[in-house]
Amino acid sequence: MNGAESLLRTLAEAGVEVCFSNPGTTELHLVGALDAVPGVRAVLGLFEGVATGAADGYARIAGKPAATLLHLGPGLGHGLSNLHNARRANSPIVNIVGDHPTYHKPYDPPLESDIETVARSLRGPVRRPENAAGVRHDAISALAEALEPPGQIATLIMPADVSWADGVAVGGDGDRPTVPARPVPAVSPALVDQVAQVLRSGEESALVIGGTAGQAAGLYAASRIAAASGARVFLETYASRVEHGAGLPSFPRLGFYPEQVLRQLDGARHVVVAGTSAPVAFFAYPDQPSRLVPDGAQTHVLAEAGQDAVGALTALADLLAPDSRPEVTEPARPAMPTGPLTVETWPAVIGALLPDRAIVIDETISSGIGLPAATAGAPRHDVLAQCGGAMGEGMPLAIGAAIAAPDRPVIALEADGCAIYTLSALWTQARENLNVTNVILNNRSYAILREEWQHLGAGASDPHTNKLLDLSGPEIDFVGLARAFGVAGSRASTAEELAEQFTRALAEPGPHLIEAVIPPTA
Amino acid sequence: MNGAESLLRTLAEAGVEVCFSNPGTTELHLVGALDAVPGVRAVLGLFEGVATGAADGYARIAGKPAATLLHLGPGLGHGLSNLHNARRANSPIVNIVGDHPTYHKPYDPPLESDIETVARSLRGPVRRPENAAGVRHDAISALAEALEPPGQIATLIMPADVSWADGVAVGGDGDRPTVPARPVPAVSPALVDQVAQVLRSGEESALVIGGTAGQAAGLYAASRIAAASGARVFLETYASRVEHGAGLPSFPRLGFYPEQVLRQLDGARHVVVAGTSAPVAFFAYPDQPSRLVPDGAQTHVLAEAGQDAVGALTALADLLAPDSRPEVTEPARPAMPTGPLTVETWPAVIGALLPDRAIVIDETISSGIGLPAATAGAPRHDVLAQCGGAMGEGMPLAIGAAIAAPDRPVIALEADGCAIYTLSALWTQARENLNVTNVILNNRSYAILREEWQHLGAGASDPHTNKLLDLSGPEIDFVGLARAFGVAGSRASTAEELAEQFTRALAEPGPHLIEAVIPPTA
Repeated sequence: MNGAESLLRTLAEAGVEVCFSNPGTTELHLVGALDAVPGVRAVLGLFEGVATGAADGYARIAGKPAATLLHLGPGLGHGLSNLHNARRANSPIVNIVGDHPTYHKPYDPPLESDIETVARSLRGPVRRPENAAGVRHDAISALAEALEPPGQIATLIMPADVSWADGVAVGGDGDRPTVPARPVPAVSPALVDQVAQVLRSGEESALVIGGTAGQAAGLYAASRIAAASGARVFLETYASRVEHGAGLPSFPRLGFYPEQVLRQLDGARHVVVAGTSAPVAFFAYPDQPSRLVPDGAQTHVLAEAGQDAVGALTALADLLAPDSRPEVTEPARPAMPTGPLTVETWPAVIGALLPDRAIVIDETISSGIGLPAATAGAPRHDVLAQCGGAMGEGMPLAIGAAIAAPDRPVIALEADGCAIYTLSALWTQARENLNVTNVILNNRSYAILREEWQHLGAGASDPHTNKLLDLSGPEIDFVGLARAFGVAGSRASTAEELAEQFTRALAEPGPHLIEAVIPPTA
Repeated sequence: MNGAESLLRTLAEAGVEVCFSNPGTTELHLVGALDAVPGVRAVLGLFEGVATGAADGYARIAGKPAATLLHLGPGLGHGLSNLHNARRANSPIVNIVGDHPTYHKPYDPPLESDIETVARSLRGPVRRPENAAGVRHDAISALAEALEPPGQIATLIMPADVSWADGVAVGGDGDRPTVPARPVPAVSPALVDQVAQVLRSGEESALVIGGTAGQAAGLYAASRIAAASGARVFLETYASRVEHGAGLPSFPRLGFYPEQVLRQLDGARHVVVAGTSAPVAFFAYPDQPSRLVPDGAQTHVLAEAGQDAVGALTALADLLAPDSRPEVTEPARPAMPTGPLTVETWPAVIGALLPDRAIVIDETISSGIGLPAATAGAPRHDVLAQCGGAMGEGMPLAIGAAIAAPDRPVIALEADGCAIYTLSALWTQARENLNVTNVILNNRSYAILREEWQHLGAGASDPHTNKLLDLSGPEIDFVGLARAFGVAGSRASTAEELAEQFTRALAEPGPHLIEAVIPPTA
């Protein structure tokens, strides 16, 4: 077999099931191998950012890496923004980038560029097998590195001549590769004990959880800790995956703006952190701090991302109150609203109708503030945020989530400005017939930038007349965009319309897009 | 004034007239300055690759740099592919990327990433002013570096606190900054003489021209050289800007595949190169050479990109035949074809109807092979190719060209696979009411990859059944996409329909899109 087939066979044998691809000439032997090797499903995106965002969504739901397949440096460039988001979500990805043969590169052909340098900006390992016989080792290593807690982007650059070189003997039946286990490091009992003493001190405390602690076991433990110690619990602002809904504890998310976070943590003498980092400002503002822990408060890192945060929280709860039970949300739906859609009414419609076991992608930016409260008593679901701040991941995330969990409804809630970056994700959703309901919150502006303008004091002029912050001319017809990509589309301006269209979208198989027209929030 | 205003004033005073932007929070003071400072037109793109491709098109037609405005590392990532193409076109660009304040970066907020590393992959200078007082110097330096022959991408990273810091006194009326001149180096008379001796030897010779030699003066000189020496002249395969049409010499382009180029240069004992590099294979193939100069032939570099190729060619022609005149193409139009659109008939329709002084963007990939012959006798026009091989630059290039030359018709000829990468360019065309006629050659496949499959011998299976090479399911409705972005759209399946729609698009102001449905070429 050739190097390309060795790569695909190795990944398949090691349990990689999907490759999100946008290939070119240098990747054609890999395209051939995807046909020839059973076990790895090839999913085509028409833009590399769709492929990388889908790999992020897949990793979050499947709990294991997918591969990507990107075309040279420019393809990696197109995929970089959502790889950045994936890195911030700690999603494991085997990021395969094709390259010219090594002997061809010194001739500096048009597509030659510095792939290594760009890949290194993702702070994960970068490998380049030198020959076809070395592919299997590098593939297994990249997979192991991707899985290193908390998960990272491992890039594998495949020169075309390594892909096409023949005569590799490794791989095949009964030769299942061993991917070295990378166990999640436990937190020392001494540190758990130390934090327990802090919480027993009676001084006001806050507990900020994120990462793996967003899953049910972490939420239960955090609730028990709150009950035993009086600590206020908060979720990190943008979490890779949080379980939410009836039967689970529900905690407020930390706000986006520094003054919001400082108000939430006000009075705390101790801030305990588990599964994430101590809160910092998303953006900097003149005369606002970067570090968002109240003056005089002590930070205690119980578990970093990559450590066993759930184990540490559970041990801490057991220490503080061994027999305690978590406080969970009762099943409850918001009353179905009527009349025009607003930032208040649209989340209520979603909360009233959210189906069981949904996966909710939240890239609503300025429009989604009411969503957590509106869905707190809905049937249990997962919420995936876009973690890196790079707009345009929602609809790709939905692809990956739907492929990882084909039996679950996926709901992508998208700000209009975000949706435009990766529009062709709709085409992949249609091609793969994925059960995704995309709801585009269309306020026809970069509303978040108008909000930020006020926060920054960015200029004497009025952000509402600034041409660069206005998306109203021409108005974008998202229903038309959806249909052009083969996705059923409809437009809702009232709560009644959204309810009817959302219900229908969930009932019918395949992807749907609902353009929800809302007034600008800022 | 603050640092942002100092930057905009400096650029405006130094002659920068346009800023292609997709800003975020860290760039809001620059957005404010774009409002406050007269002289720099802010053009909004909804995706950074639209902004960077537009800056490339602007530079090629205006002959001077535009600025870009990108949001942090992920924005640079989205813009990287078309910056790569711009680098290969030797287009000068002042590439402005916003960043967090320096003091905020150590906190590693979600959008923190390694902007410098990614920018350095473009092989141009990267500057980061340390304070507002230093902005003016860095802006002038970046502009001078961008203009360094043959032109390059000069990146200017603007930390938000440098943008918002107040109290800068420089700039203003009467304080026009001096951008150090970077003259194009002349070729030594000795080298011209040496090449003249080669061409006088009577041995078979070929002349490959590109870069600035694609403009009329270079074409005239090359034609005179051919007449005097018998050398066969070829244009480089993908040139940044070539003048073409009636009254100009017309030369064949070098082919895309190695065997095509070697056939074209077959028999040559000498290959003289001016304005570009010696031909190399675009992609590598097993058992094909990278260097595409026939065995035993000598390469003579008369002028590299960045040297005065037109001056050198003119001097060479004067040496060889001082009184000679170039051979130019007579005005002639192809007969208007009838019946179904094919790769043969669609270029004939364009050739029959091409208006005077058009700017033709050619990103047709596998569908455009017949275009040069069909337009050789049409009214004089400029042809801009996508030079770097990174798909998705055509419609953004058209934006920049139309803004640089608002009185000229711009015609973007686009392969379907390419158009999808930067679809939202249509929105910017509509918003700015640009006279761009986009013709999408829709063959519903990655036809180029099927062609390449045959060349590579990429696998035993049939590329026509390979799911990753097929764009037919679902079929993309480009007319619907255009209308959704506010652009008039129509579909043509016959030559008659294309002729009627193309004529109408040219007659009406503002952008149009014609989806030309053609059979797959491979």
